[in-house]
Amino acid sequence: MKISGRNYRTVWLENSRVKMIDQRKLPEQFEIAEFSTPEQVAKAIREMVVRGAPAIGAAGAYGLALAVQAFEGNDFGELRKQVAKAFDVLFSARPTANDLGFALRQVKKAVEKATTVEEAKRFALQAAEQFAQWNVECCRKIGEHGTKLIKNKTQILTHCNAGALATVDIGTAIAPIMRAFEQGKQIFVYVDETRPRLQGAKLTAFELAEAGIPHAVIVDSAAGSLMQQGKIQLVITGADRIAANGDTANKIGTYALAVLAKENKVPFYVAAPTSTFDPKCKTGKEIPIEERSEEEVLMLQNQRLAPQKSPAKNPAFDVTPAKYIKGFITEKGTIAAKPSAIKKLSGGR
Amino acid sequence: MKISGRNYRTVWLENSRVKMIDQRKLPEQFEIAEFSTPEQVAKAIREMVVRGAPAIGAAGAYGLALAVQAFEGNDFGELRKQVAKAFDVLFSARPTANDLGFALRQVKKAVEKATTVEEAKRFALQAAEQFAQWNVECCRKIGEHGTKLIKNKTQILTHCNAGALATVDIGTAIAPIMRAFEQGKQIFVYVDETRPRLQGAKLTAFELAEAGIPHAVIVDSAAGSLMQQGKIQLVITGADRIAANGDTANKIGTYALAVLAKENKVPFYVAAPTSTFDPKCKTGKEIPIEERSEEEVLMLQNQRLAPQKSPAKNPAFDVTPAKYIKGFITEKGTIAAKPSAIKKLSGGR
Repeated sequence: MKISGRNYRTVWLENSRVKMIDQRKLPEQFEIAEFSTPEQVAKAIREMVVRGAPAIGAAGAYGLALAVQAFEGNDFGELRKQVAKAFDVLFSARPTANDLGFALRQVKKAVEKATTVEEAKRFALQAAEQFAQWNVECCRKIGEHGTKLIKNKTQILTHCNAGALATVDIGTAIAPIMRAFEQGKQIFVYVDETRPRLQGAKLTAFELAEAGIPHAVIVDSAAGSLMQQGKIQLVITGADRIAANGDTANKIGTYALAVLAKENKVPFYVAAPTSTFDPKCKTGKEIPIEERSEEEVLMLQNQRLAPQKSPAKNPAFDVTPAKYIKGFITEKGTIAAKPSAIKKLSGGR
Repeated sequence: MKISGRNYRTVWLENSRVKMIDQRKLPEQFEIAEFSTPEQVAKAIREMVVRGAPAIGAAGAYGLALAVQAFEGNDFGELRKQVAKAFDVLFSARPTANDLGFALRQVKKAVEKATTVEEAKRFALQAAEQFAQWNVECCRKIGEHGTKLIKNKTQILTHCNAGALATVDIGTAIAPIMRAFEQGKQIFVYVDETRPRLQGAKLTAFELAEAGIPHAVIVDSAAGSLMQQGKIQLVITGADRIAANGDTANKIGTYALAVLAKENKVPFYVAAPTSTFDPKCKTGKEIPIEERSEEEVLMLQNQRLAPQKSPAKNPAFDVTPAKYIKGFITEKGTIAAKPSAIKKLSGGR
C-alpha cells in the first residue's frame, strides 16, 4: 500500500528479520517493527503487531523460514526437529485464522523436499516468499472479481480490517472497494469501528483516508439501522477460516451483520483467498474460536471503562452460517457459499 | 438506588436546585451536580449529566418548576409567557425521548390550573414531584410484572442503561432483573457496553456491581453470537419513545438486537412506563431521531481513535419495528406490541 507516497507491504523479510508495520500504533504513528526468531514472531502475532488471517500467514511463513536460516550444522534430522518446534510455536499464536497453518505447511513441505541443510534454507526462504507473493496476487484478483459486484453509487459496509494491512498487500474485502474506486465508480464506505480493538476505526479508516475514498466510521451497533434505512447496498467482510460447508469464522460481529443483511435483503459477501478455506473443517462448529483477554473490552488506552468489580467476556471471533452468505469472492472468482462450489475451489489448489 | 450504603435518586429538587448524579463521571467518581435555571438543566440534558427517558422527564419537570419559582411579581400572563419559554428551552434538549414532553406538560397543566402566581408556584412544584414519585412507582411495578418473565437460571441481555440511573429510581429494563435477584433467582446479565458513550459498561455495570448481580460486559457486536450459541434466553431493553403501533425508538443498536433475538427465537421485551408511549406518533417513521456529534464516535477520553481525516456518523437512536418485540413491560402489566393493546394502555392514563 502507498503511505506518504512510498510503497509498503504489511510484512516482509529483510536482512534476516521479519519486518512488519506495527499495527498497534496506527493511525497515530507509522512504525516498522522487526523480529528475528519464531518466538518473537509468535509474540507479535499474539499481541497484534500484525493481524488479519493472510498477513499472519505470511508472518508465520517468514518466521519459520528464519528458524531454518538460523540452524547451525549439517544434521538434517536435527533441522527437521527444529522446524517442527518452530512450527508449533508459530501455529499456536492464533487458533482461528486458517492461513497461518496453510502458510506454515508450505514452508515445512519445502524443507522436506530438500536433501541438504543448505538446500532446505534456500527452499524455506523461497516458499515463504512465494506464499507472500501468491497472497498479493490473490488479493489483486479478488479486487478484479469483486469490483464486478459494485455498481456506481453503491454504499458499502465493511467490518474490522480486511484491507492491505490484513494481508501482504491490497487486502481482501477492501480490494474490490479500492478497485471500484480506481475505476471511477462513486462509492461510499461505512466502516464499523469494530470493538474491542477498533481495527475498523484505526486501520480500515486509515487505508481509506490514505486512498482518498469517501467513508464514515460508525459504531458497530449502527450498521443494522443503516441497512434498515436503505443506506447500505452491499456488505463485504474478510474471513479467518471458512469451513467446507461455507460456515465462516471472522471478527466478532460478523455474524450479526450477516443476519441483519439478510433481514434487509442486502447482499453479504465474504472476500478471501483459497488459503482461508479449510476443507478439513466440515462445519463452523469445528472452528476453534479464540477467547481473548477481558482487558481488551474493559480498558482503552490505559483507562478503565467499566467498574473495577465488573468482568467481561471477549470472544474474538464468531461463526456466520453459510445460509447468510451470498457468496465468496476468491482469487478464482466469486462462488456461492455452497459445499459443491467450495469443493471445486479447493480441488484446484 | 443504594450507593455505598446510602439511598439516592438520580435526580431530585433540593434548596431550589435540581440535583443530579453526574453520570458523565461514573463509574470512577460519584458526584452530585446542581443546576438552578431551565437553561442549565437543558444543557445538563444535552451534555448527558442526566440521560434515560424517564430521568430526563423528571429533570425537565423540576427545571420547569424552578422557572416558576424564580418568577417575580404577580402578573399571571407574564408568568405563562415565562413558562412557555422555559418549556421550549427544556423540550428541545433531547428530541427522541417522549417522557420529557410528557413531564413538562404535567407541570405546564398544573400552572394553568392555578389562579394566582403563588398557587402556580405551589402547583408546579407538586406536579414535578408527582411525576418523579409516579415514575418511581411505575418502575417498582415494572419490576413486579417483569420478574414473572424471568425463570430461574436465566441469562439476560440488556443494552445501554435502563436502570435506576435512567429513571428517578429502580429503572425500567433493570427493574425486573433487580426484582428477580431479590427473589433469589439465579440470573446472569450480559451487559452490552453500548458505544459510543458506553452507558452499559459505565452505568449498567456499575448498578449491577453495586447490587452484587453476576454479570459480564461484552462489546455490542458480540450479543448476536451469544444468542446464536444459546447463551441468552431473554433480552430486555428500555425505550425512548413508543409509537401507537408499537414501533420503538431506543439507543442505537436496539434494532439489531431485536432482529438477532427474533432470528434466534429469544424473546425480546421493552420495559417502559406509559409516559414513554406517544399516542400521537402513529409509527416509528414519525419519531425524531437525534444525530449527535461525530466526536462521540471518534474521540474517547480525549484521545482520537480514528485518523484525523476520517469523519463519522453518529445516529444516537434507532427504531425497532413492533414485529420484533415480544411485549412491553409497563406499570400496568406486560402487553403485546400491538396497536390495540397499546391503545387500551394509553386510554387509562
